[in-house]
Amino acid sequence: MRNILVIGAGRSASSLIQYLLTKSEQENLNITIGDLSLELAQKKVKNHTNARAIAFDIFNDIQRQEEIQRADIVVSMLPAHMHIDVAKDCLKFGKHMVTASYISPEMQELNDAAKAKGLIFMNEIGLDPGIDHMSAMKVLDEIRAKGGHVILFESFCGGLVAPESDTNLWNYKFTWNPRNVVLAGQGGAAKFIQEGTYKYIPYNKLFRRTEFLSVEGYGRFEAYANRDSLKYRSVYGLDDALTVYRGTIRRVGYSRAWDILVQLGMTDDSYTIENSENMTYREFTNSFLPYHPTDTVEIKLRHAQKIDQDDIIWDKLLELDLFNGEKKVELKNATPAQILEKILSEKWSLQPDDKDMIVMYHKFGYELHGEKHQIDATMVCIGDDQTYTAMAKTVGLPVAIATLKILNGEIKTPGVQLPITKEVYLPILKELEEYGVIFKEIDVPYLGYNPLNVSS
Amino acid sequence: MRNILVIGAGRSASSLIQYLLTKSEQENLNITIGDLSLELAQKKVKNHTNARAIAFDIFNDIQRQEEIQRADIVVSMLPAHMHIDVAKDCLKFGKHMVTASYISPEMQELNDAAKAKGLIFMNEIGLDPGIDHMSAMKVLDEIRAKGGHVILFESFCGGLVAPESDTNLWNYKFTWNPRNVVLAGQGGAAKFIQEGTYKYIPYNKLFRRTEFLSVEGYGRFEAYANRDSLKYRSVYGLDDALTVYRGTIRRVGYSRAWDILVQLGMTDDSYTIENSENMTYREFTNSFLPYHPTDTVEIKLRHAQKIDQDDIIWDKLLELDLFNGEKKVELKNATPAQILEKILSEKWSLQPDDKDMIVMYHKFGYELHGEKHQIDATMVCIGDDQTYTAMAKTVGLPVAIATLKILNGEIKTPGVQLPITKEVYLPILKELEEYGVIFKEIDVPYLGYNPLNVSS
Repeated sequence: MRNILVIGAGRSASSLIQYLLTKSEQENLNITIGDLSLELAQKKVKNHTNARAIAFDIFNDIQRQEEIQRADIVVSMLPAHMHIDVAKDCLKFGKHMVTASYISPEMQELNDAAKAKGLIFMNEIGLDPGIDHMSAMKVLDEIRAKGGHVILFESFCGGLVAPESDTNLWNYKFTWNPRNVVLAGQGGAAKFIQEGTYKYIPYNKLFRRTEFLSVEGYGRFEAYANRDSLKYRSVYGLDDALTVYRGTIRRVGYSRAWDILVQLGMTDDSYTIENSENMTYREFTNSFLPYHPTDTVEIKLRHAQKIDQDDIIWDKLLELDLFNGEKKVELKNATPAQILEKILSEKWSLQPDDKDMIVMYHKFGYELHGEKHQIDATMVCIGDDQTYTAMAKTVGLPVAIATLKILNGEIKTPGVQLPITKEVYLPILKELEEYGVIFKEIDVPYLGYNPLNVSS
Repeated sequence: MRNILVIGAGRSASSLIQYLLTKSEQENLNITIGDLSLELAQKKVKNHTNARAIAFDIFNDIQRQEEIQRADIVVSMLPAHMHIDVAKDCLKFGKHMVTASYISPEMQELNDAAKAKGLIFMNEIGLDPGIDHMSAMKVLDEIRAKGGHVILFESFCGGLVAPESDTNLWNYKFTWNPRNVVLAGQGGAAKFIQEGTYKYIPYNKLFRRTEFLSVEGYGRFEAYANRDSLKYRSVYGLDDALTVYRGTIRRVGYSRAWDILVQLGMTDDSYTIENSENMTYREFTNSFLPYHPTDTVEIKLRHAQKIDQDDIIWDKLLELDLFNGEKKVELKNATPAQILEKILSEKWSLQPDDKDMIVMYHKFGYELHGEKHQIDATMVCIGDDQTYTAMAKTVGLPVAIATLKILNGEIKTPGVQLPITKEVYLPILKELEEYGVIFKEIDVPYLGYNPLNVSS
């Protein structure tokens, strides 16, 4: 029997644990699921004979070291900043490790030591980061193998609501951490490179500079730019690509309406509102508008944001109940962002029968024999239910598959790793297809931003 | 002879030192002017018999303590964070102290010890803070003395260019630290209270929510809200005032044009631009606009910011040379804000014969015997030249006058003080009039924001 320790049994671990339990008989796996909440761990174990659930406290050094010593490989689904103690123990006791998180500088420092001990510390092998790396590198490597030179790479990902559960005017529900959605794009300008020119979009323009995307069978989407599109430029070998852009996918019209909330100041997390607890939603909205003795909050907002009477944006704002003079905020000393998150959560939470949807879209532009070409790769994954969500599947399954492939010696390169080599991405992408995570690659005319090289 | 130590001989110390030198014979003053630059100190001393210039390093403990021991009172014109060592020495050696800076928490902590030793540590006695406190408290105290209840207090101040030197389309030149002008309003929403309602203006709307002001003989001005209008609410006794607002004065039209630079992202100081050194001004502007192979930077900016062809804003942008394809930025790893500061400095620096202007405007609304009244108090001060600027006069003279009045025992209340009591503000405001710093108070109809109490 091989022992796998999974730390963290939260939402993103459902599909991961199910995969390992299903494989446990055939693969001789003994799985320990540890979580601060024993109940949560037990719920995921479902009394499976090859698994045990334990209450697990990551800050209990004795327990942590005992459990890691018992394991052959450790999967950490903890928040990113909590991996490092686990990683150091894995190094000490000679265990492999898998996470879906970005490689922290502390994790990177363990690279030499992990290599020396022949240990694999595989990171960024969830959805984004994870499936994005693997699916992008596969096409990039294929283009290069046939002699092509990549000139454009754009990559988009979004966690959305499935079409059958898409029941509000924003075409959006929270499928992940709502706070991150409210704060999206804050903390500095979005930076990318377009036809060789560095471009910077400040937060107050971010949601007005969207790109459109179409996915066959799923209609149109839009995307706004991520903070740092250039993070993986070198890792992907794209230092001389003219265009490198990464973005977040929403349904068309979301960003234009979201921008109204941004412009009002409702997404600000830097200060608290006076007496927020007893404020109505209407008073919250009014606090961002000039005082007037008789003009309504509605007309002041329409005027401030120049919203025509027949603009669908208005219906989106009404749908959020922003002008409700009865509902109280009921949060003490709250920031505008915290209040907005509460207001949105009442409208954008997934209902028991709702399904989520992950959409990923890559564009690869390249030159081959003097001609410009483009490949578009798209993936859409719909959740099964509220446990085996598209998010849980796309985050957890690559982690689970990688874990087993490391155990079985199919993935062998030691060190602190990203899933960007053929050894890793080929077998994992292939197996993911069995679970409905399938990329469609199609050749399209090269679009770029200057396809005819006008004045260049 | 009484010994005065003045630390710091920079721009804001000119009028201060001149005042003390002029009074030195009659008042038996011996003045020591210390500055890191001996040359600067000597320039201010002008070989006056009652003064000596010294090279002074605030971080040299021995020198600092020696000089403070020799003095009867110490004036610190250092940057605010450098006062505390001086203050501790003053406490140790039993010397009074005067600064034009905001009271820091560390300074406040010395209050009890200063009181116990009978020492006066007078702070915030420059222009803003300083003259604003004194001129506001004078009128507030007068209103209260006659039984009035203050319901509105608005206070505005601006450092501008004098009308005779106002030669650009922005009606603005740098008369103080340019960096602060570029970053003005950043770091959190502007907060104030209007007719009993807390209001918050995010940075991206700050320059579009201005108020207008008229000063007889000087025409119209506008003002945008300061970050925290409520800082002195309690100190001024305004906790139950319905409206408390503080703002920064500019000429009408400045803010609307400045907002274009804000919206483009040019005032952002949070990241550096790639290859900024070799970038032209045109490329800098283009980095905030979408890529297009043929559309010009001009048409892209006009479109992005919706600027009509005949809008004066356009001429203001042209005047800054923002579309110049020849001029290089020549700053390494610069933030947008640093680059913008450089571009503006080429156009907005005071020329040798230019004069600056300080404008202060207070509105006091109050109820007396069931009637609403309003007093507007305005002050305009024009600089003499580039040494005795309006800024140097309004910052330095109250410091100098307070220093002498403390020495002469006219100001006696010990402790860490603000100039908000009659003992301080009455004699200082009176003497300031001799130097042209004169407030005109006029009764006007109560304006407020809801003068007829409509629906309230």
